[in-house]
Amino acid sequence: MPYIIAVYDVGQKRVGKMLKLFRRYLTWVQNSVFEGDLTGAQLRQLQQEAEAIMAEADGVIFYQLRDERYSERTALGVDKAERSRFL
Amino acid sequence: MPYIIAVYDVGQKRVGKMLKLFRRYLTWVQNSVFEGDLTGAQLRQLQQEAEAIMAEADGVIFYQLRDERYSERTALGVDKAERSRFL
Repeated sequence: MPYIIAVYDVGQKRVGKMLKLFRRYLTWVQNSVFEGDLTGAQLRQLQQEAEAIMAEADGVIFYQLRDERYSERTALGVDKAERSRFL
Repeated sequence: MPYIIAVYDVGQKRVGKMLKLFRRYLTWVQNSVFEGDLTGAQLRQLQQEAEAIMAEADGVIFYQLRDERYSERTALGVDKAERSRFL
């Protein structure tokens, strides 16, 4: 299953809605950053729901890793991730 | 060369310094998100410089991909990336 890192940059009015949406699909990591496993169908659904919330000037980026093992993760300072998915 | 995605969440007072530091090493993508190729030595140097700026409650995460080709990148809405590194 592909591993997703997602980041959003949206207007203040939509931050709450986006946070709630992304938490339904992924693990909150930091600020506006989320991680987790999603099937292709789940990813498309999340993208559609995000687009329905987004307004002008908002942006969301999804990084799709083929497999979690392809990446290393290093956290400096406070690691707020709800659960650790990497080493 | 490993491909890095870096995200930080730091106090308002340190945002300017962090932005300046990260831009010296990586490409600004969105909000507090950066991407780019770094050697292991460059990554360690960036991490040391970031730690020198960081204070309590600040956090920085580095995702290290073995190779840029292992990932897909999808942007919804405004893509503020200074240059596109993916498809």
